[in-house]
Amino acid sequence: MQSNDQRAYDRGVTVFSPDGRLYQVEYAREAVKRGSPVVGVTADDAVVFAAHGRPRSPLMEPASIEKVHDVDGRLGMASAGHVADARRLVDYGRQFAQRERLRYGEPPAVEPVAKAVADRIQESTQTGGTRPFGAALLVGGVVESEPRLYEIDPSGTPTEWRATAVGEGSEAIRSHLEAEYAAESDGGAGVSLALSALDEGTDDGLRAREIDVAVLDEGGYEALSRDRRATALEDADLSSAS
Amino acid sequence: MQSNDQRAYDRGVTVFSPDGRLYQVEYAREAVKRGSPVVGVTADDAVVFAAHGRPRSPLMEPASIEKVHDVDGRLGMASAGHVADARRLVDYGRQFAQRERLRYGEPPAVEPVAKAVADRIQESTQTGGTRPFGAALLVGGVVESEPRLYEIDPSGTPTEWRATAVGEGSEAIRSHLEAEYAAESDGGAGVSLALSALDEGTDDGLRAREIDVAVLDEGGYEALSRDRRATALEDADLSSAS
Amino acid sequence: MQSNDQRAYDRGVTVFSPDGRLYQVEYAREAVKRGSPVVGVTADDAVVFAAHGRPRSPLMEPASIEKVHDVDGRLGMASAGHVADARRLVDYGRQFAQRERLRYGEPPAVEPVAKAVADRIQESTQTGGTRPFGAALLVGGVVESEPRLYEIDPSGTPTEWRATAVGEGSEAIRSHLEAEYAAESDGGAGVSLALSALDEGTDDGLRAREIDVAVLDEGGYEALSRDRRATALEDADLSSAS
Amino acid sequence: MQSNDQRAYDRGVTVFSPDGRLYQVEYAREAVKRGSPVVGVTADDAVVFAAHGRPRSPLMEPASIEKVHDVDGRLGMASAGHVADARRLVDYGRQFAQRERLRYGEPPAVEPVAKAVADRIQESTQTGGTRPFGAALLVGGVVESEPRLYEIDPSGTPTEWRATAVGEGSEAIRSHLEAEYAAESDGGAGVSLALSALDEGTDDGLRAREIDVAVLDEGGYEALSRDRRATALEDADLSSAS
Amino acid sequence: MQSNDQRAYDRGVTVFSPDGRLYQVEYAREAVKRGSPVVGVTADDAVVFAAHGRPRSPLMEPASIEKVHDVDGRLGMASAGHVADARRLVDYGRQFAQRERLRYGEPPAVEPVAKAVADRIQESTQTGGTRPFGAALLVGGVVESEPRLYEIDPSGTPTEWRATAVGEGSEAIRSHLEAEYAAESDGGAGVSLALSALDEGTDDGLRAREIDVAVLDEGGYEALSRDRRATALEDADLSSAS
Amino acid sequence: MQSNDQRAYDRGVTVFSPDGRLYQVEYAREAVKRGSPVVGVTADDAVVFAAHGRPRSPLMEPASIEKVHDVDGRLGMASAGHVADARRLVDYGRQFAQRERLRYGEPPAVEPVAKAVADRIQESTQTGGTRPFGAALLVGGVVESEPRLYEIDPSGTPTEWRATAVGEGSEAIRSHLEAEYAAESDGGAGVSLALSALDEGTDDGLRAREIDVAVLDEGGYEALSRDRRATALEDADLSSAS
Amino acid sequence: MQSNDQRAYDRGVTVFSPDGRLYQVEYAREAVKRGSPVVGVTADDAVVFAAHGRPRSPLMEPASIEKVHDVDGRLGMASAGHVADARRLVDYGRQFAQRERLRYGEPPAVEPVAKAVADRIQESTQTGGTRPFGAALLVGGVVESEPRLYEIDPSGTPTEWRATAVGEGSEAIRSHLEAEYAAESDGGAGVSLALSALDEGTDDGLRAREIDVAVLDEGGYEALSRDRRATALEDADLSSAS
Repeated sequence: MQSNDQRAYDRGVTVFSPDGRLYQVEYAREAVKRGSPVVGVTADDAVVFAAHGRPRSPLMEPASIEKVHDVDGRLGMASAGHVADARRLVDYGRQFAQRERLRYGEPPAVEPVAKAVADRIQESTQTGGTRPFGAALLVGGVVESEPRLYEIDPSGTPTEWRATAVGEGSEAIRSHLEAEYAAESDGGAGVSLALSALDEGTDDGLRAREIDVAVLDEGGYEALSRDRRATALEDADLSSAS
Repeated sequence: MQSNDQRAYDRGVTVFSPDGRLYQVEYAREAVKRGSPVVGVTADDAVVFAAHGRPRSPLMEPASIEKVHDVDGRLGMASAGHVADARRLVDYGRQFAQRERLRYGEPPAVEPVAKAVADRIQESTQTGGTRPFGAALLVGGVVESEPRLYEIDPSGTPTEWRATAVGEGSEAIRSHLEAEYAAESDGGAGVSLALSALDEGTDDGLRAREIDVAVLDEGGYEALSRDRRATALEDADLSSAS
Repeated sequence: MQSNDQRAYDRGVTVFSPDGRLYQVEYAREAVKRGSPVVGVTADDAVVFAAHGRPRSPLMEPASIEKVHDVDGRLGMASAGHVADARRLVDYGRQFAQRERLRYGEPPAVEPVAKAVADRIQESTQTGGTRPFGAALLVGGVVESEPRLYEIDPSGTPTEWRATAVGEGSEAIRSHLEAEYAAESDGGAGVSLALSALDEGTDDGLRAREIDVAVLDEGGYEALSRDRRATALEDADLSSAS
Repeated sequence: MQSNDQRAYDRGVTVFSPDGRLYQVEYAREAVKRGSPVVGVTADDAVVFAAHGRPRSPLMEPASIEKVHDVDGRLGMASAGHVADARRLVDYGRQFAQRERLRYGEPPAVEPVAKAVADRIQESTQTGGTRPFGAALLVGGVVESEPRLYEIDPSGTPTEWRATAVGEGSEAIRSHLEAEYAAESDGGAGVSLALSALDEGTDDGLRAREIDVAVLDEGGYEALSRDRRATALEDADLSSAS
Repeated sequence: MQSNDQRAYDRGVTVFSPDGRLYQVEYAREAVKRGSPVVGVTADDAVVFAAHGRPRSPLMEPASIEKVHDVDGRLGMASAGHVADARRLVDYGRQFAQRERLRYGEPPAVEPVAKAVADRIQESTQTGGTRPFGAALLVGGVVESEPRLYEIDPSGTPTEWRATAVGEGSEAIRSHLEAEYAAESDGGAGVSLALSALDEGTDDGLRAREIDVAVLDEGGYEALSRDRRATALEDADLSSAS
Repeated sequence: MQSNDQRAYDRGVTVFSPDGRLYQVEYAREAVKRGSPVVGVTADDAVVFAAHGRPRSPLMEPASIEKVHDVDGRLGMASAGHVADARRLVDYGRQFAQRERLRYGEPPAVEPVAKAVADRIQESTQTGGTRPFGAALLVGGVVESEPRLYEIDPSGTPTEWRATAVGEGSEAIRSHLEAEYAAESDGGAGVSLALSALDEGTDDGLRAREIDVAVLDEGGYEALSRDRRATALEDADLSSAS
Repeated sequence: MQSNDQRAYDRGVTVFSPDGRLYQVEYAREAVKRGSPVVGVTADDAVVFAAHGRPRSPLMEPASIEKVHDVDGRLGMASAGHVADARRLVDYGRQFAQRERLRYGEPPAVEPVAKAVADRIQESTQTGGTRPFGAALLVGGVVESEPRLYEIDPSGTPTEWRATAVGEGSEAIRSHLEAEYAAESDGGAGVSLALSALDEGTDDGLRAREIDVAVLDEGGYEALSRDRRATALEDADLSSAS
């Protein structure tokens, strides 16, 4: 399916292909596409994360799948792709936030955290002896009344969005966001938009127990309880079986 | 049996395949599947581990096969797969628990131990000069009256379960657990469930001398004596030949 | 398309081909050619940077694509190619400028910053365990009334220009610059030249929201607001749809 | 004799085969099988080691072949396989015992020594830049009236035995041990059993000058003199030519 | 064009070919031959460097091509080949001169600088993890009334010359030097000789704006202004179009 | 001559072959077999070393071929194989002896020196980034009236001998030693035996100028002068042409 | 010309071939054979070095070819082969001599310097990440009235000679030395012998400007001036064209 020419360049991360591509980074993007999707939406005064993850078994605690992460009580991160890789990057973000808080006496804003994590990822794509991280991240929060949302891809490039998604079906989800996103809306509308978008990337409907929703506003990070997730699904006119 | 395309990506752990997979991690999962099974079950006030291991000879001390491990008197770990690798990870967990206890004056809960070990495993899958660990682990215990049970796979992903199994026949065992698990049950019922599940993954019946059973409750870690194991097999309606 | 002979030398950056070429550096130049273009123009008392970047989605903040960078309030950098790589080099330039300022009590001029970044790039082409940076940079500013503009390519060679461009379509852009460049002109004329040149490298016209423009003069670094960018497009007789 | 598929995975120790095996460790087991055999037997109050090694020449000092080693006057180790590798591991065990004695004021028991050596071996199977050790070890001694005997294989897995053997013909020797082992017996009976078992793994009879025998009891480590070895062979009804 | 036998030895710098050659060093010499030429000439009381470099565009500052370098006000270096590599070596020479001056209270002579740079280059041809430098250098100056001129090739061998050239067309240039060199001549004659020799290696004539000329005498390093370069071309009977 | 299967395992020292062999160590043994032979013989109160080495030219100082080495005035070492490798090992032995003397106030016995050198050799066979030593060594001396003689092979295994030989023709020499060795004999008889054995491994007779002989007794290390070597050859009924 | 079997072993210096050879060292010897020859001769009270080197151009300073080196005013070194490699080894010898002088208050004799350099070379043949040195060296001087002359080959083996040669034609030169060497002769006769031998290895006669001659006696190191070299050629009945 791939030619001999391509194969020659895709096994060493420290190597460009003749047309200037880094195949290992592109393969890491494939790992992201295999992961269950996460959505981020900015509202007037909040950033909303919504993630979907189906437990392998009814005996697995869905909460432990860890798709949306509280960074430091004010900022959140969501991830798609290789779960273990994502956990390392979230930890890195947490440590960065903690160090900054100690150094400057106040917690960092969204952008510095996103860029620090992006730098860490870029390094993994250039230095020998390591592979890229097989995960994409969303980083968001409300700092000084300003909701900010960043996406970081496996090349280590941070970009800012009003609403976006990564992971399986992210193209369909993003089309939905582009069609439905309204500039001025409150957090509740943001949750509804995030969930209806997430639903676009899922084949058989969302269930309260299989989704993670977090709202970040001036008050900080709040993960929605299962009851509130069920209500939110109803508010978004999405059938909630569980 | 495998194509040329696959072979090109499966020998270096620091390399993604074009479809975003890490073959070395998947092969480490095969090492887990070749290991004798362990089961973990949460009860109301306890976590139960049960493991099966047939000694190579009647002269081998079955206790030395080491499938269920006392971490620090309160937490336990059970492992399947490459035994020597699992020992290193259990040691790592013990050292982590000891360091935390020294640093904070109290022992760590189940989750931090599980995540520290998971981080160590993830590192082995990304950094050059090492292979992944060929072992999967269960980590459990009762902290502040709450029974917690984690599974860690060779990618370094921790997930929380009410009951689960790793190793040979783990799919059959888990099906049994899914069918039989009852939310509110005491430690004794947990032992019975763990043993009957373990029996599903075994071809020719369990013998008291070939199994390890440990119960973790508020009182701490307790490995069942051979007599109590024999009784427990009877309680679970499993014929105990030895 | 490429011969066996070439392929033998293009996979290890630390290796010369028999005709004395470094293929990995040449492939990094291809990564630059795939990036959206940036233009730098010196005027009598200013240096102007203009960049073009089309957001992947209307929901992406165009400002976050980061093509023109404020180094230290006096100097600017613009980049084309692999975005994550360029970010690392811009950070390196910022850190160098900061260190110099601390060491000597005054900020560095344009040339030392350009050469420090060039050295960093050269190192990546000679030392093992790393790949070259897939980015080209422009560095400029007005120091002691003298506008200076440097280009740094992926081999780590710095060259000084009165006006130049890197990235996709840079040859067409440079031809335009060579034809239209006038030695004595003010900053406004510089902006018009930069934009009309940039337009040469673009298929379907420039839009105010998709371009970055920065003017560096004795007063320091100033990024043009979207309104001023729109006006500048009009001044340059370029249709501004957005 | 081996397929292409196998060959692809057996040359780098840091690599799993698709079925989860570590070929380099399995080849190290072959090095063990090529070494002359050693036997370990626990008695009521003693552990007995017996080893067989035929000198290459009548001018070689048989004692220097070094199959049974005094670790610290209380514990012993016996080895089969690559002699130079085994020596390093025995040294490692001695240093560990010495360090523990200095740290805790008393010498370590059998189990910690066996596990420390096992850890050292496991490391050699996972970390790059080294090969596994081509040796298997027995570690034994009587600590607090309890005779303990461990076997450590080239994967770094320690297991406890009442009686076992490693090296050439170890399967035949172990069968003999399984058939003849009696739980309650004194050190003399242990020596007889060890020698008759060793004889099973040898084609042309044991000679006092070609065997090593050591008895470890509460009194410590004692290597049997050649006269006592001759007597022991007679006691075990084994013809002693030398 | 090259045989299989050769190809086997030319990709790793740390490897000799069966006939005792270092192919990577020979390929670095090819990189030198691809670079525009530089000439060095000793006169009675001066050393003259002349270099030729055609800017890629009329907008490029020819001075920034950097072919002749002021080391420390007294010594000069000229380079041909891979520009970024040459810059690193010139920097190395400058740092060496500065360190020597600090250590001994006086600046180093020509020979120690040439040998220090040569050592740095030799190292790059023997130690793993790096490639040779793709540049050749001339180092010269007048120390204690003695004009000295060294050439350093990519193997790291320094040789002293009365007049020499490196880079494209250096063989034709050197033939001219051998025919025309006169032992006793002043700096002006040296400049004329250097320019007429440089002209031999150029297809379409020298232009004042495309050449670099530096004269080193007891007074130190002096780069000729464009006017003086134009005059010098006339003095050497070379048509000066620009 | 060798099969494809073998070739796959003989190029990396850190790799076992499927039958548990280390080919690089076996090839190092071939380097030993290509070296001129050395003999070691223990007598009642002495150890004798005799070596044969034919100078490449009558202008070479035979003494500089260095086959028998004075370690510290009491112990001696003799070597066969790759001369430069042997020198490093002899130096290592000397340094070890010196360190021990400084640490314990008295010089080390024969066995510790032999084992320290053996450890150094074993390390070279297991750790990456180095090849084995292509030399075998004899180490001997009289400590507390006890003559001791060790042989160390390229695997790093030390063995004790009453008399032995390494290098070209060592099998024939050892056969001679086995046939002629007498347990109780003085140093003079030891010299005669060593020389007659050495003569077995040589095609065209021994000459005083081409042999090295050293006697180690309680008085320490003594290299025999050429006159005494000639007399010794006569005493041993070996024609001495020079 | 070489078989596949050979090729498999000659590219990694840390690898023995199946017959115990180190091909990279043998190829380094080829580099020596490609270098212009140097001769060393001991006389009663002096050591003489003579070297031949034809400058590539009449404009090259023959003295800078550097074949005979003053180590510390008392000892000398001469080299053949890869010039840049030889320079590093001569520097190493100089640094060693200086360190010894500082440490012991007196300069080292010939043998320790020769052995230190030999050790450095051996290391380059065993440790990974480097290639052997492509140079052979002569080291000589008169210490305590004793003239000493050592040759060091690319394997790192030092041997002592009364007279020897390395480099192109060294076999013919050595034959001449063997035929003509007279044990008791003064320095002048030594110079004549060295020159007539050198002439054997040269096709078209020696010229004073193309040779280096140094005499080392109790008075120290003395390089002969061109006039004295011309006289010496006449004394040796060798036509001196220049």
